[in-house]
Amino acid sequence: MTQITLNKLVIIGVGLIGGSFALALRKAGVVKHVTGVGRSRENMQRALEQGVIDEIAENMASALHDADCVLLAMPVGQTEAIMAQIAPHVQTGTIITDAGSTKQDVVTAARNHLGDNLKNFVPGHPIAGAEHSGVLAAQPDLYTGKHVILTPLEETYIDAVKKTTALWQACGAKISQMQVAEHDEILAATSHLPHVLAFALMNHLHRSTDNPKNLLRFAGSGFRDFTRIASSSPEMWRDICLANREALLKQIAAYQDELNTLHVILKNGDGEALEKLFSQARGMREDWLKNIG
Amino acid sequence: MTQITLNKLVIIGVGLIGGSFALALRKAGVVKHVTGVGRSRENMQRALEQGVIDEIAENMASALHDADCVLLAMPVGQTEAIMAQIAPHVQTGTIITDAGSTKQDVVTAARNHLGDNLKNFVPGHPIAGAEHSGVLAAQPDLYTGKHVILTPLEETYIDAVKKTTALWQACGAKISQMQVAEHDEILAATSHLPHVLAFALMNHLHRSTDNPKNLLRFAGSGFRDFTRIASSSPEMWRDICLANREALLKQIAAYQDELNTLHVILKNGDGEALEKLFSQARGMREDWLKNIG
Repeated sequence: MTQITLNKLVIIGVGLIGGSFALALRKAGVVKHVTGVGRSRENMQRALEQGVIDEIAENMASALHDADCVLLAMPVGQTEAIMAQIAPHVQTGTIITDAGSTKQDVVTAARNHLGDNLKNFVPGHPIAGAEHSGVLAAQPDLYTGKHVILTPLEETYIDAVKKTTALWQACGAKISQMQVAEHDEILAATSHLPHVLAFALMNHLHRSTDNPKNLLRFAGSGFRDFTRIASSSPEMWRDICLANREALLKQIAAYQDELNTLHVILKNGDGEALEKLFSQARGMREDWLKNIG
Repeated sequence: MTQITLNKLVIIGVGLIGGSFALALRKAGVVKHVTGVGRSRENMQRALEQGVIDEIAENMASALHDADCVLLAMPVGQTEAIMAQIAPHVQTGTIITDAGSTKQDVVTAARNHLGDNLKNFVPGHPIAGAEHSGVLAAQPDLYTGKHVILTPLEETYIDAVKKTTALWQACGAKISQMQVAEHDEILAATSHLPHVLAFALMNHLHRSTDNPKNLLRFAGSGFRDFTRIASSSPEMWRDICLANREALLKQIAAYQDELNTLHVILKNGDGEALEKLFSQARGMREDWLKNIG
């Protein structure tokens, strides 16, 4: 494991994700000084008071001055704008990385703006639950045992990848690498599609009744678990869906085919086919549970 | 609250549901003797050893002789057959009730077979999680704080309803009453549809990849929660889907409309509409969480 020390870490967007990254690296003794960049003065103040950051940046130029590493952890909808803002001030040698749930859009923005600094840009995605948000929810062990996916580009310097890997490992995470497109397709299937399906269920139920209280009164633990992700941030998920639109549209279309197949089988009263499909579904999930240990 | 004592309780199908009912009533000091009826000698033996039942019935006639109450807790696919089997032996005054996840099919079977004893039949549905199954998973507090829905018929004697209510209350449950059709529609929407959607997701993912291990490797807590119900019993859910087919088909069709709407909105890149729908979805869920307290 590469050892790493950062004199100056910059967090752009000091919420759950960015805040926890800072706290984890402080705890690991890896970072000396943390500068926060953000739009909400109130939130930045909170971050300072919580000890998540050591200073609030006056502006992007001063923030990035002598920065060893900068983490982009603001909502993915702001990626293009932030890339444009950091580009003039990023110094040679500064590692730039991000935490966005989608990667192609982030990479496109990086290619548009970073110029020669692209070589030190390491696209990343920490797969960490975010039921709560904001800097007050930030915790040093958020990433312990969690997966982080890095999607380095052809242009990305190996050294930048090694350093980013070392930082996330210092947070306790398990690092994997893959191609940008593969990342977006896998996440579309296993994360973005389920969120859309859960939102759609709530919308369907909302549309189907004048009396939601009565309809949901007897909804049990199965409903609770299935719909948990429908309590996610609407803004964040709007941005993720738009950012990963192509992959997600493919997933939705393929899912609609599957649901239609089930619809026909049920219409035909084909119990044998139903049982076969349900068994296959359960079997796949049980295998997954065994594999993740 | 009506006080009740049962000299002889009969449980047909001594699994998680039937077994827990027996244990709860024992704990409440409400039942003196429990007779179990079931097809698997091994399971019945286990039930005896676990102290869930006091005797294994030789046959239906001896089981139902002098029974104060009989609970049908076998898989719903066996309802018709069991109703036919108990009909000749049910004694006047015996309360007959069930625990099936669907009610119309159970009521139809009861009407087909019970004759004059229909008046003592109280269709019921305990809404209790069943991630594990079998008599070894049975516990006396399974129903504590849980909802039980009774769907008495026009013909059902008030006294039978009162007694069934008292039994479930002794188990710690909260009792509600509704019409058969309303029950099946509500459960189709809030329980059966989500199960179908979760199964369909696993089937879709299975079909989309040669390498499920790789695809699911980074699936996180959102995926885990959303798909939890896809680990449910394929046989049980085949039976529930077939039993509640009409209501469920309507739900699936309406859900497909909703998903299609979302698909079009996403295709158009309409972020505002997406955010509005996702907000509505989250709002409805948050209201539900507040209401259930």
